[in-house]
Amino acid sequence: MTESYDFTLWSHYYRDYLLSNIIPFWLRHSIDTEYGGYFTCLDRYGKVFDTDKFIWLQARQVWMFAKLYQDNDLNVSDNERKEWLKTAQHGAIFLEKYGRHPINGQWYFSLTQQGHPLIEPYNIFSSIFASMAFGQMAKIDKNNCEKYKQIALETFDDIQKRRLNPKGEWNKASDLSPRKLKSFALPMMMCNLSMELEHLIDKQLIQTLTQECIQEIIVEFRQADSGLILEYINANDGSRNDSFEGRLLNPGHGIEAMWFLLDIAERQNNKELTTICIDTIIKILEYSWDEKYNGIFYFLDIEQRPPQQLEWDQKLWWVHLETLIALIKAIDHQPERTNELLGWLNKVQKYTIDHFVDSEGGELYGYLNRQGEVLLNLKGGKWKGCYHVPRAFYLCYKTLDKISKKK
Amino acid sequence: MTESYDFTLWSHYYRDYLLSNIIPFWLRHSIDTEYGGYFTCLDRYGKVFDTDKFIWLQARQVWMFAKLYQDNDLNVSDNERKEWLKTAQHGAIFLEKYGRHPINGQWYFSLTQQGHPLIEPYNIFSSIFASMAFGQMAKIDKNNCEKYKQIALETFDDIQKRRLNPKGEWNKASDLSPRKLKSFALPMMMCNLSMELEHLIDKQLIQTLTQECIQEIIVEFRQADSGLILEYINANDGSRNDSFEGRLLNPGHGIEAMWFLLDIAERQNNKELTTICIDTIIKILEYSWDEKYNGIFYFLDIEQRPPQQLEWDQKLWWVHLETLIALIKAIDHQPERTNELLGWLNKVQKYTIDHFVDSEGGELYGYLNRQGEVLLNLKGGKWKGCYHVPRAFYLCYKTLDKISKKK
Repeated sequence: MTESYDFTLWSHYYRDYLLSNIIPFWLRHSIDTEYGGYFTCLDRYGKVFDTDKFIWLQARQVWMFAKLYQDNDLNVSDNERKEWLKTAQHGAIFLEKYGRHPINGQWYFSLTQQGHPLIEPYNIFSSIFASMAFGQMAKIDKNNCEKYKQIALETFDDIQKRRLNPKGEWNKASDLSPRKLKSFALPMMMCNLSMELEHLIDKQLIQTLTQECIQEIIVEFRQADSGLILEYINANDGSRNDSFEGRLLNPGHGIEAMWFLLDIAERQNNKELTTICIDTIIKILEYSWDEKYNGIFYFLDIEQRPPQQLEWDQKLWWVHLETLIALIKAIDHQPERTNELLGWLNKVQKYTIDHFVDSEGGELYGYLNRQGEVLLNLKGGKWKGCYHVPRAFYLCYKTLDKISKKK
Repeated sequence: MTESYDFTLWSHYYRDYLLSNIIPFWLRHSIDTEYGGYFTCLDRYGKVFDTDKFIWLQARQVWMFAKLYQDNDLNVSDNERKEWLKTAQHGAIFLEKYGRHPINGQWYFSLTQQGHPLIEPYNIFSSIFASMAFGQMAKIDKNNCEKYKQIALETFDDIQKRRLNPKGEWNKASDLSPRKLKSFALPMMMCNLSMELEHLIDKQLIQTLTQECIQEIIVEFRQADSGLILEYINANDGSRNDSFEGRLLNPGHGIEAMWFLLDIAERQNNKELTTICIDTIIKILEYSWDEKYNGIFYFLDIEQRPPQQLEWDQKLWWVHLETLIALIKAIDHQPERTNELLGWLNKVQKYTIDHFVDSEGGELYGYLNRQGEVLLNLKGGKWKGCYHVPRAFYLCYKTLDKISKKK
């Protein structure tokens, strides 16, 4: 069967919804003009239902607006772009002022609306997203360029120091435990971060780090037999660990990592890596697609045993959006596989638009039950902010536009 | 409408399923004859799918068999009762040998099959369940009575010391945080524990502790306006806190606590407390019953905002079983409200039998989706062991039997 897909039409769709709906939604509802930073807990229509400020989401929103501002080809007015710059600055000021622990300088997990600390810096990903945010701010905020560069680099150094024991004192694993696992999330995010900071960091360091992470992901976390990616493996030799953690699959995570690696493979002109990434995307989709109700499962067990996560069968926005990015990039990088990839792209895109996009309330729903019905009708919360949705619509637009212009 | 309910018939139902199905299921599948202790990760038919040993569940299973062994009125053979004693001892030996941290003596959260530590004693409830288990073992294991009493008491002392900061070094809340919350789970479990250890501890201490906890639960956690029980309140003055935690309702928790308090009220002959508890059970049920698909929600937000927990709409076995215990005890304690309570009892019991009881695979399912379909077909896992199901069937049987004999 030959799959059809109108690259030009869909590139317009992603651009239009991004610029006429998604970005205005966040500009209208998320700016805290009183205390700075952003509200992210927004109900279906954008009303704030909780005022806590989560560093992941504060930093990601800074990053997003800084990224958009840098794109001169979006064909929007100067005023609009200036508002994006202002919005990014608004979050960066709040983060700089309140985001870090006064003694160890690490990034908190969450703050009150006013910026008082709530949850300690137990989570290294707060630092990763902060580093990405200030790395982008250093590019666009001329008056604060040096200062923001400094913050990005200090944070990057801290991440490097903490990598081997990212949970630090909050690690609940016993010192006496025979089970030492390493997590896929870390090399995955380090790949992303090293691309993000390449304008600030020594090229050789970036290259070594990137190669290490690619090696770990492709050779260790990816299972040669099934092509699936495990969330945790034995730290010493990368082998499988027969435990809840060691059997866990997080399909969205694996697919998201594959498009990070596709970007790296493109720069390195590494065709072999490109092929492995695309094969892996397809293997993960084949394993994780819900044949009964459609959509991609949130968590699975590689031995098909019951997973720990009660939310395993839910359909999450970011899983589907990361898959769209990955599939569209895959088509861009290996056009000869377009037909095979379009089968999946049409399926995942239809599911996403039918179930996640909320043209009445705006933006996208985040959490559906297995059947595809809305489980929580929020547009933002503790984990969903101004990030996966605009990033995906932006990258899908850019990549589809590129493909359609090549044709 | 007059509700009908055959107390004798149902007392037989609970007894028969307990003794002919539930207990044999755990005896047949959960005993680790190689390394000691119990397997709790059992699939639909009892096959072990993971061998980790969780202290909560090890201790609860010891407690359960020790409890059953003490009941002379169950009309079972001596051999059967001896097997229960042996099974309780089997778990107690494993716990005594491997369960505690070698330096601080606190109870780990989990161990490998062989008893090596996995997760540190970050969780005070491991200690609470261990203390309950050894408190019961001290009653039945004549050769080890003094030793087990000692373990129960040392653990109780440690719990007392940790109560004000139960998470200790694993507490992620910042010292600088303006949000200091206290958790409902602790006074609730202290009520239960003080009843469990009354044969070992100074009467005056028990009474003071119990009164403190009742006060906290009824005056602070229970909201006078709605009759609902919050999971977290401000630590300083017990007031509401407008945050995800501060808005959280856990209906099963609230209802379970109410039957702990009903037991205490009966001993104290405190009719006022009995009335408050029964009113609260009904208020919680009215708020938390799913009118669309039946069953009791797992988590809700007291302001009807989106809860953090993605599993909020699922139907969990223990929530429904604790409700059955609470309703049957309520009828026993205030027979004049039987008709009002039977409405709920018939509803919750029908739901439980129709959806949770698995007469083919045995025992009860634990996790259903909102629609009442099986979400995970395990019979035991990281959190479901030999505890809520047998305890509920045992207590429902005993209480219904008592009611039917009074009639």
